Amino acid sequence: MGNFQARTDLALEARESISEAESELRGVRVEESYHKEEDVRVTKVMIDTRNAAKIMGKPMGIYVTMEAPALVEPDEDYHREISACLAGELKELLPESEGEQSILVVGLGNREVTADALGPRAVDNLQVTRHIVREYGAAAYNCEKMNQVSALEPGVMAKTGMETAEIVKGVVGETSPDVIIVIDALAARSTRRLNRTIQITNTGIQPGSGVGNHRNALTKESLGVPVVAIGIPTVVDAATIVCDALEKLLEGEEDLDVVKYMSRQQPGFPELYNMYMTGKDIDAVIKRISFTVSEGINMALGCSSL
Amino acid sequence: MGNFQARTDLALEARESISEAESELRGVRVEESYHKEEDVRVTKVMIDTRNAAKIMGKPMGIYVTMEAPALVEPDEDYHREISACLAGELKELLPESEGEQSILVVGLGNREVTADALGPRAVDNLQVTRHIVREYGAAAYNCEKMNQVSALEPGVMAKTGMETAEIVKGVVGETSPDVIIVIDALAARSTRRLNRTIQITNTGIQPGSGVGNHRNALTKESLGVPVVAIGIPTVVDAATIVCDALEKLLEGEEDLDVVKYMSRQQPGFPELYNMYMTGKDIDAVIKRISFTVSEGINMALGCSSL
Amino acid sequence: MGNFQARTDLALEARESISEAESELRGVRVEESYHKEEDVRVTKVMIDTRNAAKIMGKPMGIYVTMEAPALVEPDEDYHREISACLAGELKELLPESEGEQSILVVGLGNREVTADALGPRAVDNLQVTRHIVREYGAAAYNCEKMNQVSALEPGVMAKTGMETAEIVKGVVGETSPDVIIVIDALAARSTRRLNRTIQITNTGIQPGSGVGNHRNALTKESLGVPVVAIGIPTVVDAATIVCDALEKLLEGEEDLDVVKYMSRQQPGFPELYNMYMTGKDIDAVIKRISFTVSEGINMALGCSSL
Amino acid sequence: MGNFQARTDLALEARESISEAESELRGVRVEESYHKEEDVRVTKVMIDTRNAAKIMGKPMGIYVTMEAPALVEPDEDYHREISACLAGELKELLPESEGEQSILVVGLGNREVTADALGPRAVDNLQVTRHIVREYGAAAYNCEKMNQVSALEPGVMAKTGMETAEIVKGVVGETSPDVIIVIDALAARSTRRLNRTIQITNTGIQPGSGVGNHRNALTKESLGVPVVAIGIPTVVDAATIVCDALEKLLEGEEDLDVVKYMSRQQPGFPELYNMYMTGKDIDAVIKRISFTVSEGINMALGCSSL
Repeated sequence: MGNFQARTDLALEARESISEAESELRGVRVEESYHKEEDVRVTKVMIDTRNAAKIMGKPMGIYVTMEAPALVEPDEDYHREISACLAGELKELLPESEGEQSILVVGLGNREVTADALGPRAVDNLQVTRHIVREYGAAAYNCEKMNQVSALEPGVMAKTGMETAEIVKGVVGETSPDVIIVIDALAARSTRRLNRTIQITNTGIQPGSGVGNHRNALTKESLGVPVVAIGIPTVVDAATIVCDALEKLLEGEEDLDVVKYMSRQQPGFPELYNMYMTGKDIDAVIKRISFTVSEGINMALGCSSL
Repeated sequence: MGNFQARTDLALEARESISEAESELRGVRVEESYHKEEDVRVTKVMIDTRNAAKIMGKPMGIYVTMEAPALVEPDEDYHREISACLAGELKELLPESEGEQSILVVGLGNREVTADALGPRAVDNLQVTRHIVREYGAAAYNCEKMNQVSALEPGVMAKTGMETAEIVKGVVGETSPDVIIVIDALAARSTRRLNRTIQITNTGIQPGSGVGNHRNALTKESLGVPVVAIGIPTVVDAATIVCDALEKLLEGEEDLDVVKYMSRQQPGFPELYNMYMTGKDIDAVIKRISFTVSEGINMALGCSSL
Repeated sequence: MGNFQARTDLALEARESISEAESELRGVRVEESYHKEEDVRVTKVMIDTRNAAKIMGKPMGIYVTMEAPALVEPDEDYHREISACLAGELKELLPESEGEQSILVVGLGNREVTADALGPRAVDNLQVTRHIVREYGAAAYNCEKMNQVSALEPGVMAKTGMETAEIVKGVVGETSPDVIIVIDALAARSTRRLNRTIQITNTGIQPGSGVGNHRNALTKESLGVPVVAIGIPTVVDAATIVCDALEKLLEGEEDLDVVKYMSRQQPGFPELYNMYMTGKDIDAVIKRISFTVSEGINMALGCSSL
Repeated sequence: MGNFQARTDLALEARESISEAESELRGVRVEESYHKEEDVRVTKVMIDTRNAAKIMGKPMGIYVTMEAPALVEPDEDYHREISACLAGELKELLPESEGEQSILVVGLGNREVTADALGPRAVDNLQVTRHIVREYGAAAYNCEKMNQVSALEPGVMAKTGMETAEIVKGVVGETSPDVIIVIDALAARSTRRLNRTIQITNTGIQPGSGVGNHRNALTKESLGVPVVAIGIPTVVDAATIVCDALEKLLEGEEDLDVVKYMSRQQPGFPELYNMYMTGKDIDAVIKRISFTVSEGINMALGCSSL
């Protein structure tokens, strides 16, 4: 019913929102596992064909989703375990390498908007090593080998006047990293997944709805090196949540276009498309999960892990 | 229909949401005026009786609402005009005085959550004079008389472990101001009023739904001195907006309780009560309007205005 | 020589700067110990008499100084050990109690000036429990007993127009804590102690040079409850360092007043009294040591420690 | 006497510190003017020859110094006048152009260290237009022509692992601006010039002492487009101030090397080279002067000025 395209950045939700018939399509493989001790459920969605990518509205590649209910709890020990989990999954998606690598970590988003500050805040706690390794070698860290980690907070277009992709592309061209890790706050379709789900994908970032080589994409195609993206949904699109509620309510009235209907009923409704919804304790949440993410990256890239 | 109590901090919206019959009730007077040059519409709602207060869900007192559509525009000159308007309305609600007064300005809210940072950020730009006037006299400002302005950012309970009212009451007890001005971000019922409406009231702040002398109130009753509150709606309650949409949709089905209905349909629906909705450019908005508010207060309290 | 009163907040330095003859004075006892594993040297200076207080320029009481060279290192594990050390020393200075206590932690200083942000930033990472314990009891923390910890960042007079002591006194009067812990950045006389020394004292805070019941003091006398102060020197007074250098240089020229001399030679010299000197990496230092301090307090006040 | 090379970023101070005989050297021209109304003294030092550059320790080019004593005053009106002055001087150093230009403004420094935050904070208040002009044309600003202004805050190497010059070079390569404006906090030799002097130069930025095409330079040679630098001294090098004091004191003792002497006398003295000295009200100062600078740039680049 309806023709409203719910907005979600999660492959897991994209899969749930397509009909069962479609979900059995060739080209989408799903693997699930459960880490009992940490209470983390890991789902790996692999989109293998162009056709599958089109139906899912997501580019071909691997999407690992870690569902960790306790990510919202303030228990520090627990977060360390999730960081370790994240480090493990991240290393599987990073390109293999025997020696030292140069990795650029990019924290996307707007530091001044709490719910969008995940990327910049995660970058704050990163162990940045590139300048030290280049000056003094891995020995400075008492390691035989040490990755060269650099970090970038490109900011948002409203503040820089530049596309994020322009800034990243320029810095990549000048510093030639072997691989890029991008961190970003995501939008989920459901409040259930907010702040407790981590998605890791080797497809990079495709602003907007997905498939294709967009001008603003941060992908292997656009940047020339592999791009792994780590995202956590911290907001729900306001229009999405209202539409979801209404679709549930109107089930059966097949020919109703919810969006058009709402625009007639509520004059301000289209404004919802510039709004987002988030929790009232979002400051504490962002502080915690940004630390969990940066710790995970530090574990994955530190010298003990080479 | 339904029994959902829409949450709004605006007396203007409270009045709109009651039926016409009720709105003609005795004890509520309304005056409107329009400042053509600045395109500011001023509505003064006066709640004069206990009965009216009960129906409106707001304490007795005067509520001035300035609707300034251009408050969302980035034009600095325009903001100066709105600040001047605000200064004028504010001075009318402040207790009269011939001489110098001591005024404590309290910036409520959470600096770390962008949409809730109006109070703390407004306080940042305030012209604080108390310590100078007490040390050197009004002469330090080349004035004959100068108000003693002090400022407090009490923070939020999750960070302090204390009620805001405890902190304010303590500081008031120790520094004995003649009057208190409280600045806070409000919740509106409609996105239409977001970031472009200023409410000034001499009733202070009543956390929760309203009438009565709450433990956490910031009012003349609880603090012992007059309290004028300045508020701007920066968020819409997430549950409110969904319910409003549904009520519109279900008009006629008199016996449906929207909230219960939604809780059955959408398992995550009650979580909406801990969520808020706000615009994607909320950082730029807060930066601008907090400055407009502090400038208005500076104009109202500075020496030229005595 | 000279009559320049070097400014230091450290009892350890005060003792070093008086002559040996004076230091053997009655009324000052010194105990030293060394924690080999953590490489922490603990010196306990006890000023027992009024006369000793006068000579030392510090009020009577106990001053524990932890010298931890590795406090400047970015090793997290090491910081955890220093936090544990700090927790131990802190508990010895806190008043004994068998049951739950109510503790107000005050973060002094100016968040906007990096070298002065130790107090506010330490308070950011504190485990604040008062509101939870009062609402749900210690059970909310799976403890039998849990202290009620509250936190206050009073800000600086230039921003509030009020003395820090007025704000603290007001909040203490309203919330009646059993004990107060104050955190502040200190000035050292020597760069050698910068950022690697923690002073804990049961004398509270005496702004300015010391002995006496000042209007702005945060002490048991002024607040009515015991006050323990935790301080770390993060700056050196600019005038102090120049004068120290000159005194060394001019040793022997007994009748030279360095300050007057410098004022003649360098017209801008008196301006130095409004300046401070700090390290170029002060942002990283403050981030680390504020966390070490808050972790130490959390350990000392958490339920396992009751 | 001595061989200490005092560190200053100001051409004005460099000129003062060389002997009179040298200052009359060919290749250095000086023009002075005084704007009575705004009490701003403008000195233009033009270094025209390689030899002069070598003696001055500054690259060839034009250095405009605005000395505005009232820059330290909190009077907003006054700051607007200084911004206008700055806009005028800036436009004279920018390359001439009849049409729209694309200008990248780079805010150097560390936002987390107050005295070093001038660049990042100035960029916060910039009117960024590039993305709007490219999407909607100058008409979006009701102008016939509008410059395309973009802004970058590259951060510091300790946080990014990359040289500032690498980041700027990459972004320049990708976005091809016509000219670059760089804003930075400077070190002065004397406290007298702190926070009240603006230097504008068309030589860009040369980290370290000066002449030559350094790897980390931000100059026309290294970036391929003209670079105008705006700097305000906010700190004094700690070693510089001590050495200056001592040199004054020791005048006549020709053969004394102050630095070596001090290193013997004060074991911690070499540490001074990693320290800086700044005023206690540096937060208020940076807030004000960063706004003055960004307003000046906005005036110089806005549509009325084309």
